[in-house]
Amino acid sequence: MNTVIEHATILPMTSEDSLFTGDICISGSEISYIGPKAPASCFPAEVIDGTGYAVLPSFINAHTHTSMVLMRNYKDNEKNLQDWLTQVWAIEAKLVEKDIRISSDLAMAEMIRSGITAFTDMYFMQWETAQSAIDAGVRADIGLTLFGDETETRHRIKDNLPRLMKYTQNELVNVSIAPHAIYTVTGGSYRYGADAAADLGLKLHTHISETRLEVDNCVKENGMTPVRYLESLGYFKVKSLLAHGVHVTDDEMKILSQYDTTIVHCPSSNSKLGSGVARVRDLRNAGVKLAFGTDGASSNNSLNMMKEINLGCMLASATTLDTSALRPYEALKMATIGGAQALGLDNLVGTLEKGKKADLIMVDMNSIANTPTNNVYSALVYSSTSEDIKNVFCNGEMLMKDRKLLTVNERWAKEKTRKTWADLCSR
Amino acid sequence: MNTVIEHATILPMTSEDSLFTGDICISGSEISYIGPKAPASCFPAEVIDGTGYAVLPSFINAHTHTSMVLMRNYKDNEKNLQDWLTQVWAIEAKLVEKDIRISSDLAMAEMIRSGITAFTDMYFMQWETAQSAIDAGVRADIGLTLFGDETETRHRIKDNLPRLMKYTQNELVNVSIAPHAIYTVTGGSYRYGADAAADLGLKLHTHISETRLEVDNCVKENGMTPVRYLESLGYFKVKSLLAHGVHVTDDEMKILSQYDTTIVHCPSSNSKLGSGVARVRDLRNAGVKLAFGTDGASSNNSLNMMKEINLGCMLASATTLDTSALRPYEALKMATIGGAQALGLDNLVGTLEKGKKADLIMVDMNSIANTPTNNVYSALVYSSTSEDIKNVFCNGEMLMKDRKLLTVNERWAKEKTRKTWADLCSR
Repeated sequence: MNTVIEHATILPMTSEDSLFTGDICISGSEISYIGPKAPASCFPAEVIDGTGYAVLPSFINAHTHTSMVLMRNYKDNEKNLQDWLTQVWAIEAKLVEKDIRISSDLAMAEMIRSGITAFTDMYFMQWETAQSAIDAGVRADIGLTLFGDETETRHRIKDNLPRLMKYTQNELVNVSIAPHAIYTVTGGSYRYGADAAADLGLKLHTHISETRLEVDNCVKENGMTPVRYLESLGYFKVKSLLAHGVHVTDDEMKILSQYDTTIVHCPSSNSKLGSGVARVRDLRNAGVKLAFGTDGASSNNSLNMMKEINLGCMLASATTLDTSALRPYEALKMATIGGAQALGLDNLVGTLEKGKKADLIMVDMNSIANTPTNNVYSALVYSSTSEDIKNVFCNGEMLMKDRKLLTVNERWAKEKTRKTWADLCSR
Repeated sequence: MNTVIEHATILPMTSEDSLFTGDICISGSEISYIGPKAPASCFPAEVIDGTGYAVLPSFINAHTHTSMVLMRNYKDNEKNLQDWLTQVWAIEAKLVEKDIRISSDLAMAEMIRSGITAFTDMYFMQWETAQSAIDAGVRADIGLTLFGDETETRHRIKDNLPRLMKYTQNELVNVSIAPHAIYTVTGGSYRYGADAAADLGLKLHTHISETRLEVDNCVKENGMTPVRYLESLGYFKVKSLLAHGVHVTDDEMKILSQYDTTIVHCPSSNSKLGSGVARVRDLRNAGVKLAFGTDGASSNNSLNMMKEINLGCMLASATTLDTSALRPYEALKMATIGGAQALGLDNLVGTLEKGKKADLIMVDMNSIANTPTNNVYSALVYSSTSEDIKNVFCNGEMLMKDRKLLTVNERWAKEKTRKTWADLCSR
């Protein structure tokens, strides 16, 4: 069954000047035509009038902890990351599988509403998150989370990996290996995790250089800054996602630029926890790959990619006093093809091209906030809010239509989450 | 005719712990009851179920240029404020009265949608903006804008003030005197404007210390930093709004704390134009009054107070690495009672109290992004978007109901704005 979106402002995100007015034909899960006028051979079963809409690749959330929506706005005014983690870990110790499924459903709903159709997760009992993503129709990259020493890591991989890998039978799900962070995972664990990822053809996903304290402690304990330390462990032989990277040094940027690794910028979380601001301009100039992540909804406190892109640009110019530090087009690239590259999905999604999967959003450029539109990239980043994202497609399936979710029962997800949270607090 | 909002989470904004669950009775333009349970004597003609809603004072936009929505996303990636102003001034020279009315209508619509029901304007031909505000049912503080030398200022006040003052017959409209900035207005103009304001019992409204360049030039030309310079001109004898204040020094903070003057923090505009970040924490600690402004929609590029509050908090913690630099409650105070004090309206609005005007918003705390809510102040600042603001009241009148505008014809405002902009570009 084919769907044609016609007369839209199409932003393929293949280059800044590649935008044009025209049509997209979706055939099954794929884009079968993109150009000025869909041919009659498209035989559309459904035609969507795209007049006044910007159509662009949907967003990729390259670092999150989906189930942390449960702890949203909970003791979220702590002094720093470490103090806040102490609060959160106490709750997390009480989580059971059912909680993960319920909160994942809410997270899927929230992400779709801001145009996200793919995400990388780092958490626990994520077979529930994988099933939630499949049911919601979004792409999930499930990071098998490692904590502690090598013995613990061996157990986690042995116990949890087969269970997670089963979900990769569904084309929407991938699995990666996710050592939590330098301050929670030993060098032996990192090495074992990296070896396992290399052997199994999986990616890696970790937190890095999020706070000054983390960097200082790493230097004290290992005689090296975090990126150098990971390099010494043979970590970068595997494609990897590095979340945060707030305190990466110039020297480390050079190292990162030589590997297939992406710094995932999480501006809300880093700002709110007082961790600092990642040097996006310098990272990009050094040739380091970049993407955006929302982080979990308990440090952010939402999973709204539109907010993240906007804040990323605002922080870049505010902290460098350079208005070109992160231009709207570059920021949108980070949230689309940048994320796709980070997840190893760039052959499938991240740009709008014939033969690629139909993962795309339709944004109302005739909303009050987008009137007049003028520069569409500026409008998307600086004027729009997620409310202007009307329709969301993933893998050719419509997940949201005129802001109504089609694959997640919103009321159910909210009610169950509220009850789960109340229950969790009383455990 | 009375309206009762019942069973709501009410945030009177009189103190952080003053929130409670209860009812508000609106009688005409005023709050006639606020407490746990509206008495039978309220005789409501309409009852609104506030279950799951946060009710708080509506927002006050303490610095904007409403009609600049016309230049939204237009050449908005210039190197700095001065380069951008050059682009904008070329367009502004072609504006006629009709343009001001049409763009003001769009601005009213946009402001109401993010919960703003009062604003201070600095622009031209603002009798049109005054009428637009009256028709939309929002409070306007119209700043008679001064540019150039004292002769020019005398002419402007003589020609424009009587015309503007007529609108103050409507309780929604006030007028202030608004010398543009130190780099566009002479010392004589500032002095004449301040004297006129003092004589007529009006406020003052100006831009100050927005960029490093402005401060450096002021020191070069006047031997003093901007705040000291204005003080030397006798400016602070009158209540005033000072927009931006990015580069205010510690010494100047002490001066400001002694006068009835408010720094209006415009985080989006300051970030985007690479001007820097106002030192909100230090200003507050020095005892300087604070409010929020969106600035014009061509440097921002929207008039969305929810975005401004969020960004204000994010920038404060990101730049100080102090998570308490601007706590959610303090930020909401800036946007409500802080703005009311700045506009001299704090006897009427800015908090929810019996006898005050019913200027308030209802925010859906059961939205996906606010589930679970936990800390309601955090939720409003970090999780909510303007989409969660469902109902807006000003002066007892409902201006938006379930996100539908009741006093502005949205379609008309958008169409007319688009046509006006196209016409303006071809003049």
